[in-house]
Amino acid sequence: MIPTPPEETPPLIRRSVAALEGYVPGEQPSGQTLIKLNTNENPYPPPPKVQQALQAFAVDGLRRYPDPSCLALREKLASYHGASADQVLVGNGSDEVLALCLRAFVEREGSVGYFDPSYSLYPVLAAIEDVSTRPVALGPDFEWAMPAGYEASLFFLANPNAPTGLLFSKHDVRAFCEVFPGVVLIDEAYVDFAREDCVDLALSLPNVLVARTLSKSFSLAGLRLGYAVGSTALIAALHKIRDSYNVSALSQALAEAALDDVGAVRENIGRIRATREKTAEDLGARGFSVTPSDANFLWVRPPDGGAKELFAALRQENILVRYFPGPRTGEHLRITIGTDGQMAQFVEALDRIARA
Amino acid sequence: MIPTPPEETPPLIRRSVAALEGYVPGEQPSGQTLIKLNTNENPYPPPPKVQQALQAFAVDGLRRYPDPSCLALREKLASYHGASADQVLVGNGSDEVLALCLRAFVEREGSVGYFDPSYSLYPVLAAIEDVSTRPVALGPDFEWAMPAGYEASLFFLANPNAPTGLLFSKHDVRAFCEVFPGVVLIDEAYVDFAREDCVDLALSLPNVLVARTLSKSFSLAGLRLGYAVGSTALIAALHKIRDSYNVSALSQALAEAALDDVGAVRENIGRIRATREKTAEDLGARGFSVTPSDANFLWVRPPDGGAKELFAALRQENILVRYFPGPRTGEHLRITIGTDGQMAQFVEALDRIARA
Repeated sequence: MIPTPPEETPPLIRRSVAALEGYVPGEQPSGQTLIKLNTNENPYPPPPKVQQALQAFAVDGLRRYPDPSCLALREKLASYHGASADQVLVGNGSDEVLALCLRAFVEREGSVGYFDPSYSLYPVLAAIEDVSTRPVALGPDFEWAMPAGYEASLFFLANPNAPTGLLFSKHDVRAFCEVFPGVVLIDEAYVDFAREDCVDLALSLPNVLVARTLSKSFSLAGLRLGYAVGSTALIAALHKIRDSYNVSALSQALAEAALDDVGAVRENIGRIRATREKTAEDLGARGFSVTPSDANFLWVRPPDGGAKELFAALRQENILVRYFPGPRTGEHLRITIGTDGQMAQFVEALDRIARA
Repeated sequence: MIPTPPEETPPLIRRSVAALEGYVPGEQPSGQTLIKLNTNENPYPPPPKVQQALQAFAVDGLRRYPDPSCLALREKLASYHGASADQVLVGNGSDEVLALCLRAFVEREGSVGYFDPSYSLYPVLAAIEDVSTRPVALGPDFEWAMPAGYEASLFFLANPNAPTGLLFSKHDVRAFCEVFPGVVLIDEAYVDFAREDCVDLALSLPNVLVARTLSKSFSLAGLRLGYAVGSTALIAALHKIRDSYNVSALSQALAEAALDDVGAVRENIGRIRATREKTAEDLGARGFSVTPSDANFLWVRPPDGGAKELFAALRQENILVRYFPGPRTGEHLRITIGTDGQMAQFVEALDRIARA
């Protein structure tokens, strides 16, 4: 007797998820001896009021659910941006804000746009939701290059861009937003290090949101606090689909404290910008091609083109930077701006490597 | 000349999201005078080691991203459950774990199952992802009632169930998991108050996960810490689609401290179970129908059937309980178990209302 073949059972895991290659975040080594210039963290501590809020936090309060609406924090953020609280959504890092936008604004037959190169998470988010992508190639120097009549359901526009640090002009961004038929999410993760921002576009155009984070300029990457500002209708849609209690009581309390201490944040931003200009000069003097940066990092091409080899050589020197393989990115390195002392060590290491 | 009509532009917000009614969480009043028996929070403070960890936390560490893999916490959770770290996924509350399951295990043409009544978030999660639902009516006393041959892509099985508190037997759960063709997510949010759990099923069957939370038994609802345990392949799929840094550095550190202090947690659980039995007796003696509970709440039908009116009368007495409108739930109230003192005040209020 021929044995019955096992019945075909459907796979347990969604096909698009099974096929997915996940996003690879920058390395987070646990050792302390490395100079870590690879994930755009702020080299300075969080503002002092965050420490005070942490010490004053009543742990007993953790037995209760946090405010599901983040009202006090949203009001502070609204006031910070000249907006109203219903124009603000708080997320568990701006990663959550980006993922929510994709789920709220892109139909299954819709598409997601972004520049190439830009933040490498954008195509991963599209792949997770199994929607098509419409990447737009930047110009030869990574400059703005948007074809006329370009359409998509949602465009992720990092400004300043990552990993290049290049700021797109508000003139170009506004002109694009005014004709683009879908939602534009202007990802301003690095904008506090830049000359201008686009919050006014988000507060005046119905199809525009700005995403912000406390991870970089506020030195609070560990807190996971991002938010979106803009069009009330778009914000309301995001509120509908987020987890009810998506921001912990501690993250809410400490973010509120940080917003009460923006003076300290601005001092750190000033230091980082000065260090950025000094480092750009040092690298230019050594033959590196340095893309003009409005962020807390530099996008540089080594003089001999061997970016991957230089990444490895710096690793040997216990200095961690970021290398992105690929046709548009593989000749460059992304260098997070650390303290003056760290950047001096970085430049010394470059000189040692060049001599070797 | 006839003016050209404006071009049809596609709506900015996904149709299913625009049509969505969001999940309504229990009220979180900001005043302190209420006795809050409405959202199944623990009346006792978090274990003492959480306070110590909070005080010892170095705020400077917040400038760095948290460990994206939550490795130390996953190892502690694995050890707690006799599992390995690759059988554990940590989420921003178990809400995130549930939402991830839907996105990882349900194709667009697939379906989501759950009992009716059960946790009211399940159909909302399905609506957010715009997939169909296949609810299964429980028996007249809310008992297990699974039709033979029932199929779906994913079944959310709250055990003990909410809002009833009823524990389904492991015999029934196992028999179901063994024949169900999709993924079973056993939502054990309340299981620490129960007589048995199903983690062994998740560690032995390829299609089963258990979701847990520190919100109830660990008194850490404000921390947002949930996790899934089970099948390595299913856990790996969830890891692929979660946000890279989905759990803050503080939540990781404080959850680790809580797991080092399970003795204190067990003492609180013992108190709550004793108070639950006492309250069930008190309510039974007053003519309430009380569903046997393995959770930290009671599902009760008032003697005169006026659940909605009793909810309002208790609110007047500054006691907040939970009322769920609907054909299967509208004659009941869900009463979170507080301290002995709070439950005595609750019973006194019932007597005052009955006399009035």
